[in-house]
Amino acid sequence: MNALLALWQRLCGDSALLRFVDINLRGAGQVMFQNHPFTGLLFIAAIAWGALAADAAAVLAGGLLGLVAATLTALWLRVDDEGLAAGLYGYNGLLVGLALPTFLAPTPMLWVYVLLGGAVSVVAMLGTVNVTRGWRVSALTFPFVLTTWLLLLAAYAFAGLGSETPPFGAELEPLDATVSNPLHLGAFINGVLHSISQVFLKGNTVSALLFLAGLALASPAAALFALAGAVLAVTSAHLLGAESELVSAGLLGFSPVLTAVALGTVFYRPGWRVAAYAALGTVFTVVAQAAMNVAFAPLGIPALTAPFVLCAWLFLLPQQHLHGNDDAKP
Amino acid sequence: MNALLALWQRLCGDSALLRFVDINLRGAGQVMFQNHPFTGLLFIAAIAWGALAADAAAVLAGGLLGLVAATLTALWLRVDDEGLAAGLYGYNGLLVGLALPTFLAPTPMLWVYVLLGGAVSVVAMLGTVNVTRGWRVSALTFPFVLTTWLLLLAAYAFAGLGSETPPFGAELEPLDATVSNPLHLGAFINGVLHSISQVFLKGNTVSALLFLAGLALASPAAALFALAGAVLAVTSAHLLGAESELVSAGLLGFSPVLTAVALGTVFYRPGWRVAAYAALGTVFTVVAQAAMNVAFAPLGIPALTAPFVLCAWLFLLPQQHLHGNDDAKP
Amino acid sequence: MNALLALWQRLCGDSALLRFVDINLRGAGQVMFQNHPFTGLLFIAAIAWGALAADAAAVLAGGLLGLVAATLTALWLRVDDEGLAAGLYGYNGLLVGLALPTFLAPTPMLWVYVLLGGAVSVVAMLGTVNVTRGWRVSALTFPFVLTTWLLLLAAYAFAGLGSETPPFGAELEPLDATVSNPLHLGAFINGVLHSISQVFLKGNTVSALLFLAGLALASPAAALFALAGAVLAVTSAHLLGAESELVSAGLLGFSPVLTAVALGTVFYRPGWRVAAYAALGTVFTVVAQAAMNVAFAPLGIPALTAPFVLCAWLFLLPQQHLHGNDDAKP
Repeated sequence: MNALLALWQRLCGDSALLRFVDINLRGAGQVMFQNHPFTGLLFIAAIAWGALAADAAAVLAGGLLGLVAATLTALWLRVDDEGLAAGLYGYNGLLVGLALPTFLAPTPMLWVYVLLGGAVSVVAMLGTVNVTRGWRVSALTFPFVLTTWLLLLAAYAFAGLGSETPPFGAELEPLDATVSNPLHLGAFINGVLHSISQVFLKGNTVSALLFLAGLALASPAAALFALAGAVLAVTSAHLLGAESELVSAGLLGFSPVLTAVALGTVFYRPGWRVAAYAALGTVFTVVAQAAMNVAFAPLGIPALTAPFVLCAWLFLLPQQHLHGNDDAKP
Repeated sequence: MNALLALWQRLCGDSALLRFVDINLRGAGQVMFQNHPFTGLLFIAAIAWGALAADAAAVLAGGLLGLVAATLTALWLRVDDEGLAAGLYGYNGLLVGLALPTFLAPTPMLWVYVLLGGAVSVVAMLGTVNVTRGWRVSALTFPFVLTTWLLLLAAYAFAGLGSETPPFGAELEPLDATVSNPLHLGAFINGVLHSISQVFLKGNTVSALLFLAGLALASPAAALFALAGAVLAVTSAHLLGAESELVSAGLLGFSPVLTAVALGTVFYRPGWRVAAYAALGTVFTVVAQAAMNVAFAPLGIPALTAPFVLCAWLFLLPQQHLHGNDDAKP
Repeated sequence: MNALLALWQRLCGDSALLRFVDINLRGAGQVMFQNHPFTGLLFIAAIAWGALAADAAAVLAGGLLGLVAATLTALWLRVDDEGLAAGLYGYNGLLVGLALPTFLAPTPMLWVYVLLGGAVSVVAMLGTVNVTRGWRVSALTFPFVLTTWLLLLAAYAFAGLGSETPPFGAELEPLDATVSNPLHLGAFINGVLHSISQVFLKGNTVSALLFLAGLALASPAAALFALAGAVLAVTSAHLLGAESELVSAGLLGFSPVLTAVALGTVFYRPGWRVAAYAALGTVFTVVAQAAMNVAFAPLGIPALTAPFVLCAWLFLLPQQHLHGNDDAKP
């Protein structure tokens, strides 16, 4: 694998086009914090599989368009070379491009919206980095969340985006917190795997395995924490009595999965104290996910990965307090 | 009293258990900014009286459990010794523990929720301090508000917390801004005293007097500003035409009371210019309380002390501008 | 013109009263970033014309009262001399004073509200400046937005402000995103000019021309970017399919106009790269305006200039990234 990577990097050294491809692949990998082109390739394969299996080619097209639009905007804005090469200006655009066709009808104006969202995600990234740098935390997917929320809310006021009725009112999906059913093993495994694939907005088992493979390629610990985070999220959501269908669709688990990977492997060095801290953060992300689902339902917009952003910031801001045990990253 | 305090501190020096009790008592006192174990003891007595008088022992139990959970979490996270000893990592957990049983049914899962909330309140405290330190303002009760909002909103999606229906819809309590009734002396005094006891989520006259006694013990000025703040809040809410029942239940006054004490005695040195500034902040907290009541009603969650946090931050952020008169704390 | 200005400044040097008038006139000019007393005078003339033409003298009176209340509060709080002289503590109070009588009935309590809002706008300005200074961005109209939102929301709970019913429920204006009508030239021109005058909360053609004249007096580039921003906002709102009546009333354009002037001429030096960046920001402000209209409709409050504040901050925070081309202000 290392030889293959070395070959790829040599090829990139000779070709501006391949370098551009490399930046975009790394952008895909950064959705789960991995700066590795092959991880990004596996992630894009997973996205393609999930989109095509759901007969939603527009989601795949949107994701790629958003990713490329973001990278081009970053070039135009002359961002820092290091961040650009690591794909840090691409992942938000990819997510914007996946989310818009997921929630909006495929009108011609949708593609203008994806381009606009991909471009603005870079501006939002630069701004967020400038603010959060002072607190020594990362921007995470906040630029994606902010940009997409504004675009989705606005779509309710724009006929060109195919929205017909305002979001408020009786037609809301009720949150049904009935006493939860016993969770059978099949539903449990489904919930765990779909919690991972829903990070990219699709519930699909094959995609989930491809995401895990991509993660393991760059960081076995990240794959382990993703899986453990998903198990913990599904279990605690179930014990709290969340609607079983949401749990097994992975819809309460994708933000906790991101929290688990971020706290357990990206911003702290893995270890027992860190694992316990990450577990607390993961469980609280389940709470935050449910809370934001309730809070945003009247607005007719999804919470996206906002629960992850909120809880990861909450648990990263006091970071110095795990240092004592030599378990913090330098 | 000083001799008694000296004796207590000597006893604490000899016993790790008593030191732990001392930290928790000071944590209770810090809800109203007082670092004094006897103040905390009187506050807990007031909470106990208010809870038992309302036949709500779960509220007392929740408060104590949240307080202890927070202190233990702070120990586990190895927070700074000075802040820990002053009770700064306990007051948010106490408030979380009082609030959850106030608004949720006493299911078994409620106690898991209190433990989770108490623990997360410490993480939120550490994170908030890291952010607000740069602006030279305190975290106030923001960690309590954030943690409790998320837990309460999420409860609507969790059968284990006994919530059955989503919060939005017709069953909301209407805010009835009818022309306000003349406020009789009895209702006025009730409003003033309950504005003080509602800081701890209960309207109870005896509790209010115990809170005032606890405040006076540590800081006569704080007791005076609490009382004056309550009078000003009740008067201005009434003159603006707020619903009389809310006013006399203290429900528009507890955040203004905290603002008055914070601005008048904690973060500025008392004086005439400061008193005028605190009065402006107190009246505006009444406005913010009403505003947040209106804004959060559709979500089915209470504003808690968010109006205090918002207005105290607003009026503390420009703090240097009262320095000229030698009335600012060093 | 320069001779006239020199004469005025000489007169101000001799009279404390005229200096006070000068501060207030510059405060009016600062709504659109211009530190020039004659610009402020033309702006106030435009406000007067718009208010009287709409038979809304209370709006004019409120604006002047809020402006003077803010300036007096700034004097009492001993703000920095330079900012005071430039009118930086007046523009938020002016806007608060224009907004309150626009949305609330003219009860006696309304004038107390205007005084309170004008005074608090200065506190909010000082606090916002302290926070945003660290990120090298300006407070913009955030103090106006925050203060006015709280006062308007609270009015629903106060009988003294004439609000009778809670804002939530069926009586909301629907956002009607029908396929937009073809936009005739007259409606287009109306939309452009009213987008400018709506910065001061009135749709009026004569007022718009006075505002443009005032801008041109202090900065021809600002007038140009205001006009171009309005054209771009009206065009893009129309193409996205916004309700035609909103577009031609200027209600989707006033925030984008402010973004265009701020990004194009105030915080960056005009140039082609900056113009392209400002255009992206202006179009995204249209999206944010529509999004906030949707989001705030259930609360029954207007978005005010919040879309401008959000988008201008978003596009100003990464400001260093346009420096390369020698197009950034020093």
